[in-house]
Amino acid sequence: MLRMLLLPVVLTIAATGAACADKVTTFTLNNGLEAIVIEDHRAPVVTQMLWYKIGAADEAPGKSGIAHFLEHLMFKGTATVAPGDFSKIVEAQGGNDNAFTTQDYTGYFQRVAADRLELMMQMEADRMRGLILTDDIVKTERSVILEERAQRTDSDPGALFSEQRDAAQYMNSPYGIPVIGWRHEMAALSREDALNFYHTYYAPNNAILIVAGDIAPDAVKALAEKYYGPIAPTANLPIRMRPTEPPQLAERRLSMADARVAQPYVIRTYLAPERNSGAQDKAAALTYLAELLGGSSTTSVLARAMQFGADAKAIYTSAFYDGISLDETTFGFVVMPVPGVSLADAEADMDKVIAKFLVDGVDQAAFDRIKRQLRADDIYARDNVGGLAREYGASLTSGLTVADVQAWPQVLQAVTPDAVMQAAHEVLNRKNAVTGWLTQPVDPKTEAKP
Amino acid sequence: MLRMLLLPVVLTIAATGAACADKVTTFTLNNGLEAIVIEDHRAPVVTQMLWYKIGAADEAPGKSGIAHFLEHLMFKGTATVAPGDFSKIVEAQGGNDNAFTTQDYTGYFQRVAADRLELMMQMEADRMRGLILTDDIVKTERSVILEERAQRTDSDPGALFSEQRDAAQYMNSPYGIPVIGWRHEMAALSREDALNFYHTYYAPNNAILIVAGDIAPDAVKALAEKYYGPIAPTANLPIRMRPTEPPQLAERRLSMADARVAQPYVIRTYLAPERNSGAQDKAAALTYLAELLGGSSTTSVLARAMQFGADAKAIYTSAFYDGISLDETTFGFVVMPVPGVSLADAEADMDKVIAKFLVDGVDQAAFDRIKRQLRADDIYARDNVGGLAREYGASLTSGLTVADVQAWPQVLQAVTPDAVMQAAHEVLNRKNAVTGWLTQPVDPKTEAKP
Repeated sequence: MLRMLLLPVVLTIAATGAACADKVTTFTLNNGLEAIVIEDHRAPVVTQMLWYKIGAADEAPGKSGIAHFLEHLMFKGTATVAPGDFSKIVEAQGGNDNAFTTQDYTGYFQRVAADRLELMMQMEADRMRGLILTDDIVKTERSVILEERAQRTDSDPGALFSEQRDAAQYMNSPYGIPVIGWRHEMAALSREDALNFYHTYYAPNNAILIVAGDIAPDAVKALAEKYYGPIAPTANLPIRMRPTEPPQLAERRLSMADARVAQPYVIRTYLAPERNSGAQDKAAALTYLAELLGGSSTTSVLARAMQFGADAKAIYTSAFYDGISLDETTFGFVVMPVPGVSLADAEADMDKVIAKFLVDGVDQAAFDRIKRQLRADDIYARDNVGGLAREYGASLTSGLTVADVQAWPQVLQAVTPDAVMQAAHEVLNRKNAVTGWLTQPVDPKTEAKP
Repeated sequence: MLRMLLLPVVLTIAATGAACADKVTTFTLNNGLEAIVIEDHRAPVVTQMLWYKIGAADEAPGKSGIAHFLEHLMFKGTATVAPGDFSKIVEAQGGNDNAFTTQDYTGYFQRVAADRLELMMQMEADRMRGLILTDDIVKTERSVILEERAQRTDSDPGALFSEQRDAAQYMNSPYGIPVIGWRHEMAALSREDALNFYHTYYAPNNAILIVAGDIAPDAVKALAEKYYGPIAPTANLPIRMRPTEPPQLAERRLSMADARVAQPYVIRTYLAPERNSGAQDKAAALTYLAELLGGSSTTSVLARAMQFGADAKAIYTSAFYDGISLDETTFGFVVMPVPGVSLADAEADMDKVIAKFLVDGVDQAAFDRIKRQLRADDIYARDNVGGLAREYGASLTSGLTVADVQAWPQVLQAVTPDAVMQAAHEVLNRKNAVTGWLTQPVDPKTEAKP
């Protein structure tokens, strides 16, 4: 079965808005488990998601990959569910399930017919504390995650380069260490490492239950009390504090050449503020900035300047920003030049476009279009109950509250062109930046180093 | 009183050899304290050094600077010595004392008349376990270390740049975090942080006592038994394991402009192996390589090619390597161009010189000269009992043994030109390298970025 590993992806986040407050109900059990119910009665299905406020960035030094490894091991059985049976049982009930790990959270979900929720909750509660691991299971699954790394990272120059750039971007934050783990550390992860991590962090007072679909809040609460309620909280749950960045004083540049590169590109990331509880304005402005400069529309500033016309320099341009993050995140650009245009020229052009934007300011028509689009996204988002559940889960495990999620559409609508330009001038600071060139191997004499 | 903080310095290590075995005596107390006595009866003085196998690279995430902070706090008193009195007592006895912290160790020493050793040992043993800290003392001394950082680092662009480069050099190892600490983390260090670190790591089974000077080993042993012997070892001393580097796949480049820069320079460091117990050959070869390419002699390869003649491009060149390190270290070059020569040209010339060396190989006469010089250094080193004590302390807290230290002069003498070239080809790999340009602020149009 495929386990999802969420790696940073280059995309512009079309921020999905929050649902109407009237469809969302929250409660907290006595043992600290927070719960969110998102009602959607259009189809008789329900999704249970259990989100742990623990991710790769919470791992101990030298134990990279343990959060994701444990995610795999969570399917390896308890006293009542045999190893590997969890997903088979879900499937036998006509449902499907999966799990995911990022720097900030680990989540598990099942999508089933609404009347199967009780069984799902029983099984999810069972493995919160009841995981049984043998050395054999750990050894076998370790080879699975190593193979996963081989396929997703080691055989993909873009993924490898992303790891190298993240390590350069973050001087102190654990965001510089890949979610899947460094291979040499993954290879040394033990049953004891997994159980230590599990016993410390898998607890009702470190989790958020999200149930979305054709179910009433009272029914969810009754089931949650029955299955999660009896689980004792962890008494001395560690405070979640990661090392943060010192002042970044020197722009960093990396180049990596790999024969497997299909299209060379230049990518620039700047350290950028994330959405913080009660203080989402700057992140909202950066959301506009990414859309304006290199969003999905072909009319973005970078696309118009570089991708069209007889002298088009780029086959692809993008700007990206995702504000859902517990600690400082990044704002970035990608430019993929047309064959024959060097990365040096592509980068120089990109920088000219950015510099011109910083002088010219926001085009009001483009701004208004994005504002309308963000409002429409918010409305459409209400139709996607799975997406909403995911948004709540990611936000609440990344330092935000239900109120923050619900306020976000209004925060986005309140952004002004001035706020966008102020955020642009603050964030587009080369001292905080990492610029990367991913290339095919070339004769070093014919192309300058970045 | 000045407390020394050992920061990485750009210098070529003229490896100091070990003393004759007949002057060095070792013993270990039942509580695990290792001791080394280096006899030197030429003058009636003695140096006591107590080295703890704990340094900045052993700090917990987010607690950078705590090792060095504790070094300061160790002078703040016990039940028998009032705050600040430690050094006054040493001084009143006609001696002097100091302390130092690096990534790999923390050390304390006093140099006194030989008949004062007992008092020194009594006092040093007293503060191994008996430190008393109040919140006031911690608060006051925290402002001292912050001021130390302000003076030594924040006001020195070279030191700041070194921090930024180290963070880029080490993707995973804590060597990427400065010994003195990141300012924002130093400012948050508490009495509890200091005491946790102290109680965990300051113990006889985590320390090495070195007594050097006009004293007999039996006398040292008797005093050590009397003062250090009664101290209980720490039962669950953590195993010393730091995160190590993943494959480095992309050369990193940094540039930093600062108006306070007097002389711009280019500096390149490559990840390089350190001296390991029983395996010092490669480090010995790298010691020659640094001397050959950019050692103290004006006849080094870089100096001859770049510093002399009518078309001299550089006012200073250097190659540097220090193999005494618990984890992977660096091999580096510095070139400071003459006014009017750009850093781009200086770096290009430096790379041409290195490339030519890799083709031409070792000049036998230069090699022979360095070999003789290293042998002479070894002989001279025996005359400097303080230097010997320091060499033993640094080596034994960095994973080496007394036998390694004593073998080192022979290992150096056994190096061949072939071994040097093999080490050069292995280590001078740009994928492992960080290249830095430290400049004065310039119009970005007149100078290319590195």
